[in-house]
Amino acid sequence: METKPTEISSSKMFGGYNKRFKHFSTTLGCSMNFHIYFPPSSSPSYKFPVLYWLSGLTCTDENFIAKSGAQRAASAEGVALIAPDTSPRGLNVEGEADSWDFGVGAGFYLNATQEKWKNWRMYDYVVKELPKLLSENFPQLETSRASIFGHSMGGHGALTIYLKNLDKYKSVSAFAPICNPVNCPWGQKAFTNYLGSNKADWEEYDATSLVSKNKNVSATILIDQGQDDKFLPDQLFPNKFEEACRSANVALLLRFQPGYDHSYFFIATFIDDHIHHHAQALRL
Amino acid sequence: METKPTEISSSKMFGGYNKRFKHFSTTLGCSMNFHIYFPPSSSPSYKFPVLYWLSGLTCTDENFIAKSGAQRAASAEGVALIAPDTSPRGLNVEGEADSWDFGVGAGFYLNATQEKWKNWRMYDYVVKELPKLLSENFPQLETSRASIFGHSMGGHGALTIYLKNLDKYKSVSAFAPICNPVNCPWGQKAFTNYLGSNKADWEEYDATSLVSKNKNVSATILIDQGQDDKFLPDQLFPNKFEEACRSANVALLLRFQPGYDHSYFFIATFIDDHIHHHAQALRL
Repeated sequence: METKPTEISSSKMFGGYNKRFKHFSTTLGCSMNFHIYFPPSSSPSYKFPVLYWLSGLTCTDENFIAKSGAQRAASAEGVALIAPDTSPRGLNVEGEADSWDFGVGAGFYLNATQEKWKNWRMYDYVVKELPKLLSENFPQLETSRASIFGHSMGGHGALTIYLKNLDKYKSVSAFAPICNPVNCPWGQKAFTNYLGSNKADWEEYDATSLVSKNKNVSATILIDQGQDDKFLPDQLFPNKFEEACRSANVALLLRFQPGYDHSYFFIATFIDDHIHHHAQALRL
Repeated sequence: METKPTEISSSKMFGGYNKRFKHFSTTLGCSMNFHIYFPPSSSPSYKFPVLYWLSGLTCTDENFIAKSGAQRAASAEGVALIAPDTSPRGLNVEGEADSWDFGVGAGFYLNATQEKWKNWRMYDYVVKELPKLLSENFPQLETSRASIFGHSMGGHGALTIYLKNLDKYKSVSAFAPICNPVNCPWGQKAFTNYLGSNKADWEEYDATSLVSKNKNVSATILIDQGQDDKFLPDQLFPNKFEEACRSANVALLLRFQPGYDHSYFFIATFIDDHIHHHAQALRL
């Protein structure tokens, strides 16, 4: 079984390189692409800390690399960016591409328990397979120094993965994350299909539920949320997460940004702050 | 005949706004989209100078806005960005979409003289109709203070339009421009079809020919060229332009950037330098 990644493209940017790789994922049972941004290196023996970016609904591994402008600060801070895809692809599961908010492009960073969606194991892919693959194939990455961030569905992924793996990630941040998926339409649709109807199982993938149970978060969580984001009222619920953080004595910096929407234009505007947030934690 | 632009989208970025507009172009005889990035304004009566971006082959008005990251420096410098489309669209001229380097998405910023392509008048659209439209509809823009830049085919457009209209633009710059189209396959294909077989007519749209004839260029021309650009050997010919500038005593800053390709990753890396270049000229 082929697991070694093959480089399929490379473009220099801000002195470093955006490189796209393809590999066969044993976790997901299909071929997957991911991007790495390698900052410029002054020494071949230097190892970069890694910062995982989890994208939102409908995205691939390309959107963040093409649109966020994150490479500028990542180059300056010496942090490698890792951008995986958002779901398995090419498995031809019936109905996998029928809607933009479920199935292909909508893995929700969980391990599905329902037989039909058994390949949808983006949680294990991001938390286990990908770090191991990076560690084994890229000596210039120091995968033990890792942080994680994301957008929308990927913000949900970053927050939940961080809260379940405080030993693996130094810091977390998110743009417009789905903070309380058990209570929003996107989350309820995805969780019902991937996890079944037992709502107790859903809470394992709900940032607001998880933070209430976890008293050991030490790093400040950074969240930016556009105030003109059309998904804010019905899907995102940052205030629920804020309440839960307050109850659990978890430090949260939640910034509402007036006039900003849900797009990469919003992300690009504040990406430097997020890179700096993680670079500080990764240097500690 | 409808010429007033209609706003079709708006997204906040770096304190300002990316806005997309649609209008009917009387020059081109079809509906056209363009983008404006308005920097943040501290006073409603302040007027921003304008910087036109001309895109390359296959692009629309969207690529630059989504991928260049130019809004960051444009916001800081207080310069409005104007990004038009690259050709007429929707006219259903036979063969207009048969190749990626000719017809739709490939207007070459000229006025076609051949009957079949009579709507391909991107030169007049960019130099005359669009500035007039902006001046009449956007009081926050000071269209008499204008500069121009572009990429590849759009770099060709920026250089030729500047050299033919030194009274209209304060400065020019380009990324990987087609510097001598009369001598490269892209240019020869386009000019033969749009302008006919008389090569004397082609020189009116060739930066290398134009700079030789024009002794009145005062501002330094800035060009960045990736050394790993796959189009460099056969299509771009920056050295021909450099020779012509030297002969004509025109100041050119031609920077070869090692390792960079023809993509927006290259553009994003050096876009700040170009914005600063123009902002300085626009402030004089």
